[in-house]
Amino acid sequence: MSEFSEFVFNDDGLIPAIAQQHDTGEVLMMAWMNREALAETLASGRVCYYSRGRKKLWRKGESSGQIQVLVELRLDCDGDTILLQVDQTGVACHTGRRNCFFRTMRDGALVEIAKPEITPEELYK
Amino acid sequence: MSEFSEFVFNDDGLIPAIAQQHDTGEVLMMAWMNREALAETLASGRVCYYSRGRKKLWRKGESSGQIQVLVELRLDCDGDTILLQVDQTGVACHTGRRNCFFRTMRDGALVEIAKPEITPEELYK
Repeated sequence: MSEFSEFVFNDDGLIPAIAQQHDTGEVLMMAWMNREALAETLASGRVCYYSRGRKKLWRKGESSGQIQVLVELRLDCDGDTILLQVDQTGVACHTGRRNCFFRTMRDGALVEIAKPEITPEELYK
Repeated sequence: MSEFSEFVFNDDGLIPAIAQQHDTGEVLMMAWMNREALAETLASGRVCYYSRGRKKLWRKGESSGQIQVLVELRLDCDGDTILLQVDQTGVACHTGRRNCFFRTMRDGALVEIAKPEITPEELYK
C-alpha cells in the first residue's frame, strides 16, 4: 500500500472525504477514510470509507446497492481533506434522500428541504 | 448563544463545514467551526470558522478581503457536518487559487489542475 505521504491523517488515522456528484455538483455526503479505505478506493474505482461507528471498512453501497463510482479524487492545499467526485447510484443518504444535507437553517431553526426518494426499509431489505 | 442542540460537535467542540459556491456548485474548501463561529456566521451572514492552528475565530477574509457571504447553512443527517452555500469574493484558497482542491490523483500521483489567480503576496499585503 502506498504511504500517501501528501495526505494528512488525524490522530485516529482518518481523513475527511467529501463526496460530490461529478456532473451536477451536488454535495452528497461527508465521511472518513483511513489509509486502507483510500487505497481500496483508488485501486477499485469504487468509493470505500472507514466507518467510525462500526470501526471497519465501509464499502459504500455494500448493503444498499447505492454505490459510488469514483470519477476523480482530489486533495486540498493542506492535505487534510479529500474531495471525491463520484457517480452516485440511487441515493447517498441512509434516510433514502439523494444527499445527506436535507436540513437547512431558516429563522434560527432547521427545516427539512428534501423528502426521501425511497424508504430505508426498501433500501436495506 | 443558541445551544445548537441538533449540531454534533466533536470532542474538541468542533464540527466540519464544507463551503460550496452557491450558484456554480464548486466545492471551495473545508474548515471547522465551534459554537461561537457557528453563531457568528448565522448572526452576521458572513462565514466565520475556528482556526485549529491559531486556536481562535477565523473570520474568513479578515486579512485577505476574500470573504464568504452566507447564502444557506445546511446540516447533514447525522448532525455532524455542515454544508455552507456561500458567495465567495475572489479566491477561497490561501495559495491564491479559487478553491483548495487543486490537486488530483492521476496514475497514482497527485498533479496540480489549477493555477493561482493571484499571488499570496498580493492576497495578504
